[in-house]
Amino acid sequence: MRINGQHYETIWLKPGNPGIVQVIDQRKLPFRFEIFDLKTAEDVFFAIKEMVIRGAPLIGVTAAYGLYLSALGYKGKNLLGFLKETALYLKSSRPTAVNLAFALDEMLNACIPCNSEEKIRRTALGIAEKLKQKEIENCNSIGDFGLPLIEEIYIRKKEPVNILTHCNAGWLACIDWGTATAPVYKAFRKGIPVHVWVDETRPRNQGARLTAFELGQEGVPYTVIADNTGGYLMQHGLVDLAIVGSDRTTANGDVANKIGTYLKALAAFDNHVPFYVALPSSTIDWGIEDGLKEIPIEQRDSREVSHIEGWDGEKIILAGLLPEGAAAANYGFDVTPARLVTGLITERGICPANKKSIFSLFPEKL
Amino acid sequence: MRINGQHYETIWLKPGNPGIVQVIDQRKLPFRFEIFDLKTAEDVFFAIKEMVIRGAPLIGVTAAYGLYLSALGYKGKNLLGFLKETALYLKSSRPTAVNLAFALDEMLNACIPCNSEEKIRRTALGIAEKLKQKEIENCNSIGDFGLPLIEEIYIRKKEPVNILTHCNAGWLACIDWGTATAPVYKAFRKGIPVHVWVDETRPRNQGARLTAFELGQEGVPYTVIADNTGGYLMQHGLVDLAIVGSDRTTANGDVANKIGTYLKALAAFDNHVPFYVALPSSTIDWGIEDGLKEIPIEQRDSREVSHIEGWDGEKIILAGLLPEGAAAANYGFDVTPARLVTGLITERGICPANKKSIFSLFPEKL
Repeated sequence: MRINGQHYETIWLKPGNPGIVQVIDQRKLPFRFEIFDLKTAEDVFFAIKEMVIRGAPLIGVTAAYGLYLSALGYKGKNLLGFLKETALYLKSSRPTAVNLAFALDEMLNACIPCNSEEKIRRTALGIAEKLKQKEIENCNSIGDFGLPLIEEIYIRKKEPVNILTHCNAGWLACIDWGTATAPVYKAFRKGIPVHVWVDETRPRNQGARLTAFELGQEGVPYTVIADNTGGYLMQHGLVDLAIVGSDRTTANGDVANKIGTYLKALAAFDNHVPFYVALPSSTIDWGIEDGLKEIPIEQRDSREVSHIEGWDGEKIILAGLLPEGAAAANYGFDVTPARLVTGLITERGICPANKKSIFSLFPEKL
Repeated sequence: MRINGQHYETIWLKPGNPGIVQVIDQRKLPFRFEIFDLKTAEDVFFAIKEMVIRGAPLIGVTAAYGLYLSALGYKGKNLLGFLKETALYLKSSRPTAVNLAFALDEMLNACIPCNSEEKIRRTALGIAEKLKQKEIENCNSIGDFGLPLIEEIYIRKKEPVNILTHCNAGWLACIDWGTATAPVYKAFRKGIPVHVWVDETRPRNQGARLTAFELGQEGVPYTVIADNTGGYLMQHGLVDLAIVGSDRTTANGDVANKIGTYLKALAAFDNHVPFYVALPSSTIDWGIEDGLKEIPIEQRDSREVSHIEGWDGEKIILAGLLPEGAAAANYGFDVTPARLVTGLITERGICPANKKSIFSLFPEKL
């Protein structure tokens, strides 16, 4: 997608220097646009842990490139053993990210049969690039399958379609297109008038900072709202459709996503607003069914609630929000029960959020 | 209630100088505690408009004192005519605040029969003080009627009672006790262990700034959370009871309150958490029934969404939160339909949120 009119993906090999992987420094968006160089597995560990990059798909692909960089730089006698150690090290950077472990295992499995160091290095790069392309294809398909949802509303309404989204399930969380945003970008490029209500998504404000940035750079009309606002908008017919992403989905369609998603799903249900979840099937946890009981919810640093980052016109600043000594709690995600979800938009099509329908799209998982 | 261990109300005559009315400067809390002097009706207009003071009950009482100050300072020949003009001027400071018009009309009605300027001045002060005392009594009664709700949960649970509240319906919005907080303070003083989940309440953060400050100064345990969090907490049994305030309530129990209240009511309903609204009957709009259709919702300055005030350790700072040129919308309130409200806690007792029950508590309004 576009930044300052130029096409970008979230990760790429530096042109002319395959020893450097480059990413967009997402800690500084939307206030500064900076490229961050990754030269070693340690750089990659730092980038994941400190959230230079974030979003499950992007974390997985970045970790894969991290293993490639580590293979490039190794000077010892046991490259495969070294890569296994590096994979463990990289997995520990964000232990809850499912795609991270998956991507690193796929990298290792491909490297193990290689009979030379040169072959391992080529394979590592090839698999990293394959994983990257796969994420792009998935998002592209999600966009194609989601597009008719928006188009049908426009045909019926003949006015701009108002779509509400929460957090950033956009291309910055993926490689390109995004998940929840892919149908929006597809509709916009097809000339369908759309307008996006962007939940700011406290505490980390990924909506206000990243989704707003993405949409603005693409020229898609949007309005940022406080997280408290979605219910009011739905009560007054100002939302035609809600689309959110998912961090983890159970086999029966319960959706763990950024904290606050459940509240919007309740409001959508109460006001007969269709509520869709866009997700690559890699985020489906096929072994679990009850999201509320079986998905552990990460509790994060309370300083994300007690403080906020912003821009003073010249630099990024940190503002304290609470009385001295105040306690704050920071739960990262909540679970939206399948009964509140109108449908799942996957790379294989749309299905209702129930076990039978999900498995009929992915029969090989039965 | 207490600040730095000393008893305060939100408004008082300066000791030894009845020509000055003093209030707490709520724009600076919790970062600075400062007293703001009101000497003229213009000072009062400024204090209401710029939100030096806020909260419907406090706005009404402050406006009443403003009329008193204006009577004190007048040097001309037609004091009553001047007071009528001043009342119109003061009403325009926050045109949506119902209590403001009510308080000023009561002041004027009491002054009109007075046969001397001296009598008018004494009457104006007397009525302002009466209005103030009435607000305190109402909150005290709301506290007494709400207390058993908390006590019963404690008797059953034998563990600290977790209460969720939204925005600031505390003593800073009133004169003393508060509305939603009054039952909490009463329970705490009775030795019942309580813990309050405080919604930060974007965009103006009245929860994070004012409710947290109030509770902390009284020693009541509390935890500030992002507005997105209440649903998660209720899903996991971490909320025993929700109590919020009301800006305007219809005769059939629909409740207009700070934006986001509706989302919490939905989550409470979905998780069988009792959801109470504490309100003095002065906020009931007896002439309307359908809150969604009949209560106009104020749209406020989008800069409250695009920027946030905080503390950098030395001073209050303003942080920009959005990409350059981003659009933001700021709806001030939403309406929670009566069907989601377990009960109303009024100064005459608790009743279900329906027309028959409300009028049976206030039969004179039929």
